[in-house]
Amino acid sequence: MKYPNGIKLNTTKNISYDNRGMDLEQDINITNQYYIDNNIAFIYKKPTPIQVTKVDYSKKSVIIKEAYFKEPSTTDYNGLYKGKYIDFEAKETDSKTSFPLSNIHKHQINHIKNIYLNGGISFVIVRFSKLFQTFLLLGEDLINFIDNNDRKSIPLEYFNKKGYLIEEKYIPRVNYLKIIDKIGGLNEKDKE
Amino acid sequence: MKYPNGIKLNTTKNISYDNRGMDLEQDINITNQYYIDNNIAFIYKKPTPIQVTKVDYSKKSVIIKEAYFKEPSTTDYNGLYKGKYIDFEAKETDSKTSFPLSNIHKHQINHIKNIYLNGGISFVIVRFSKLFQTFLLLGEDLINFIDNNDRKSIPLEYFNKKGYLIEEKYIPRVNYLKIIDKIGGLNEKDKE
Repeated sequence: MKYPNGIKLNTTKNISYDNRGMDLEQDINITNQYYIDNNIAFIYKKPTPIQVTKVDYSKKSVIIKEAYFKEPSTTDYNGLYKGKYIDFEAKETDSKTSFPLSNIHKHQINHIKNIYLNGGISFVIVRFSKLFQTFLLLGEDLINFIDNNDRKSIPLEYFNKKGYLIEEKYIPRVNYLKIIDKIGGLNEKDKE
Repeated sequence: MKYPNGIKLNTTKNISYDNRGMDLEQDINITNQYYIDNNIAFIYKKPTPIQVTKVDYSKKSVIIKEAYFKEPSTTDYNGLYKGKYIDFEAKETDSKTSFPLSNIHKHQINHIKNIYLNGGISFVIVRFSKLFQTFLLLGEDLINFIDNNDRKSIPLEYFNKKGYLIEEKYIPRVNYLKIIDKIGGLNEKDKE
């Protein structure tokens, strides 16, 4: 039996299984491409900001000879879904018990807050790699935790209580927009 | 008399006048920063996409030793304004009569179309540098021109007819969101 793009069943199985440990960024990029290809959403990863200091124009194509990575001023992903502005950061942790807040810069946290205060939908996607669990946590709930806790990490229980477990499968890889559909941008768990 | 940040009046005048020829990108970045600082909108320029091929990790800070500029897959600017998704490309031309469409890549045009078809507000900001005129042209009107003309450039008259002249002053530099307020995302000129 032939699968799209000539992928055979056993190969598909391998990909599906092996990629359990694949990095979150790649999973999200593949998912976003699926959303774009199917006219579902237009969400892109922003390029890494780079400060270019030396450029060689002598060759056929321009070559950058010296440059430095800069700290991003906002989140990594943003875009449009059903007329709504979507904005998020994605992070992985090896911890089995909590997500260290040092993973998210202060200006990124401010940005996440600005977005939901101004009518956008902002969130973080956090993968606990060792647990094979990926959560969506709304910006409001992220900020709420930070404002009301002295802890430098968010415990897994908080994700279980306030966050949403994202379904992971072959296509689409991490269907986070299904969560947005479900909650409509407002955390239903807060209403309980 | 002292101005904010210690700028004196005559200096301000110089800046204001000399910068008539300042590049559009810089004007928009300053305007966006004004919007952010005043909690009006959260619109950012995406970093230029760069393909990094060689990195030196031996120094204190990581140095990129070889990299290449990549073609952007979407527009340069996007963000959030009053709950609306905003997305645009900004271009300058020295021509006094028309804007060459070769300035905008095909996939950027597709992206602009995808955005307004999915409930976002997309547009181009085009500056005719020699005329000291900067226009906002909605995505719908850009695509409408492209779909109905064989011309490889958009004549100035089309901008006068379908576009909106953006007010330019010292602060904010190019107040393009004033146009969005006025038209509410729909081109009123189409209704005439």
